[in-house]
Amino acid sequence: GLMESAGMSTRIDYAGNLVGRLEGKRAGTAALIAGSHIDTVPNGGHYDGIVGVMSAIEVARTLYDNDMRLEHPLEIAVWSNEEGGKTGSRSMNGSVAPREMDLPSLGDKTLGEGIRFLGGNPERLDENRLASSAVAAYVELHVEQGAVLDREQIDIGIVEGIVGIKRWYIRVQGFENHAGTTPMDQRADALLGAARLVVAVNDIITAEPGRQVGTVGKLVPQPGAPNVIAGTVDMSLEIRDLDMNKVDRMFRRIEQAAKDIGEETGIGFTFDQYYESPAADSDERIMSATEQVAADLGLSTLRMPSGAGHDAQSFRDIGILGMIFVPSRDGISHAPGEYTSPQQITNGANVLLGTLTELDRRLD
Amino acid sequence: GLMESAGMSTRIDYAGNLVGRLEGKRAGTAALIAGSHIDTVPNGGHYDGIVGVMSAIEVARTLYDNDMRLEHPLEIAVWSNEEGGKTGSRSMNGSVAPREMDLPSLGDKTLGEGIRFLGGNPERLDENRLASSAVAAYVELHVEQGAVLDREQIDIGIVEGIVGIKRWYIRVQGFENHAGTTPMDQRADALLGAARLVVAVNDIITAEPGRQVGTVGKLVPQPGAPNVIAGTVDMSLEIRDLDMNKVDRMFRRIEQAAKDIGEETGIGFTFDQYYESPAADSDERIMSATEQVAADLGLSTLRMPSGAGHDAQSFRDIGILGMIFVPSRDGISHAPGEYTSPQQITNGANVLLGTLTELDRRLD
Repeated sequence: GLMESAGMSTRIDYAGNLVGRLEGKRAGTAALIAGSHIDTVPNGGHYDGIVGVMSAIEVARTLYDNDMRLEHPLEIAVWSNEEGGKTGSRSMNGSVAPREMDLPSLGDKTLGEGIRFLGGNPERLDENRLASSAVAAYVELHVEQGAVLDREQIDIGIVEGIVGIKRWYIRVQGFENHAGTTPMDQRADALLGAARLVVAVNDIITAEPGRQVGTVGKLVPQPGAPNVIAGTVDMSLEIRDLDMNKVDRMFRRIEQAAKDIGEETGIGFTFDQYYESPAADSDERIMSATEQVAADLGLSTLRMPSGAGHDAQSFRDIGILGMIFVPSRDGISHAPGEYTSPQQITNGANVLLGTLTELDRRLD
Repeated sequence: GLMESAGMSTRIDYAGNLVGRLEGKRAGTAALIAGSHIDTVPNGGHYDGIVGVMSAIEVARTLYDNDMRLEHPLEIAVWSNEEGGKTGSRSMNGSVAPREMDLPSLGDKTLGEGIRFLGGNPERLDENRLASSAVAAYVELHVEQGAVLDREQIDIGIVEGIVGIKRWYIRVQGFENHAGTTPMDQRADALLGAARLVVAVNDIITAEPGRQVGTVGKLVPQPGAPNVIAGTVDMSLEIRDLDMNKVDRMFRRIEQAAKDIGEETGIGFTFDQYYESPAADSDERIMSATEQVAADLGLSTLRMPSGAGHDAQSFRDIGILGMIFVPSRDGISHAPGEYTSPQQITNGANVLLGTLTELDRRLD
């Protein structure tokens, strides 16, 4: 309804994405696409995703109300199931595997059932795939979900790219034993080995300048009793950076640190990579357009990576992409305390409008 | 039946302990007591506890069969519920609280129900209390439950005492945050703080010579997800030593280390002591008697602390105590792989016999 009142034609595609379209002056040309999502995590806030969708519709309405017709068609997409795996936007690059349709969503449906519920058709998902020739640029406005802009009181974040992520499970193998009868020099304490590795991960990630991050968030010692030396520990490792070579270099150092700890203590470490999301770089033309628009509006900007994943990264292989961040108060995200002020959202929507009209001029 | 065939009168006391008695030559004098337990942990082995009971009965049978009547009465006790909290032996010093009777046992009964099942009476537990004047000495033979004797190929361990234990729960308070959007220098990672403390515990415990042990066996980060910086960690700390002053000194250093980590990182550490078992020293007269008996039998000995708890410690305040250890293969304990050879058990039983007859001569 909002889209239609902004002069757009609307459709639901096979992935349950809701897409509004304003035709451009030039027929048959590639589209400028703006979008985000309106689904949230359970007990989430009111800003993550929704700010980008509402701002994009407001951009279309402003163009329509002022009879400012672009050269390119403008499409506004509300991507389905972002929080559950970016299903809607990933259908555009053909990377949704058929078996995903049977996976549970964050609600009470499978992904396939959810897509049907939204009016899509999981059996025809392949037909959603976009050709590169169909995309002029993809631009997404989103709340930062971090505290950098809020802390430094900057109006607009120019996203340099969405960081790549690799995740491993690590099995730490020691020897379970009685905490009273086993002398300190006779132990192979898996929890002590795991703790040394957690400290090493932090040392290695912070030893080099840059904005890479490395996290151990999960750590489970077995048997996990106060009076038993842990025999095994299962822990996670995650490394993120815009440069996947840097991710790999950091990982090799961590692997070497584990080997060193193992040689000293007799504890074994086995790494099993189970997840990889490649980095998606923003296009320089989009970043500089956004930068100039913000400067013209008197808004301060900062180039920064997005540490979180976004629908925009689905456009990595099918077109150029860019993102605009607005501040999140205290960096709170995925919680009811999320907040971005009306003025901050207005700033973002104005920058999105300016970026799209600027790109409309600059791009073929 | 075994006790009666060894000439003993038998009774079940109020705590469900089975006690056999051989009268001594001197009427009305304090008893020499030997004992251990026949209950096991679920999926335990065949040696922990049982070796001590069978050896003590064998000692009585040997005395009876050979008409070797001691000056003191000899009592052989099979203590109830050792593995579930030394209930039977603790009833002798009056430290079983009435509320314990309602606690679940390791089986499907409460402690009170279990005591009744064994023929005791939980309402009259207080009357089990022994006066110091009733005990000449308590001696317990037990498998080591550690690997020291096995590794060093020593026949007999002379237990210097049962170590004291203190246990704490530690709450580590950081700030939960997004593992992608929170720069390394903006984190208060509770799991990193906990890991630093685990490493510090090991460093502090091993920095000083001695046989003290310190263990972190339980560690639970929240929320415990690979892509979330842990906001809190709950972890355990246990310290054991024969010298409680040393336990306290080690703990103060660990507390200071936590404070130092906290000042550097902004992470909070709160210590909550929830368990204390005081150390119980062996009596020098018993240790030297055992040592001499073993030497006469050509058996090698080593003075050592018991890192595990035993019924013997219940005699800390009501009489002198001592313990004799026989080797446990590979130190395996509380598992089906427990093993002590027939010859090693025979050695232990012979040393127990000699120790009791020697004490019978030496003690009033």
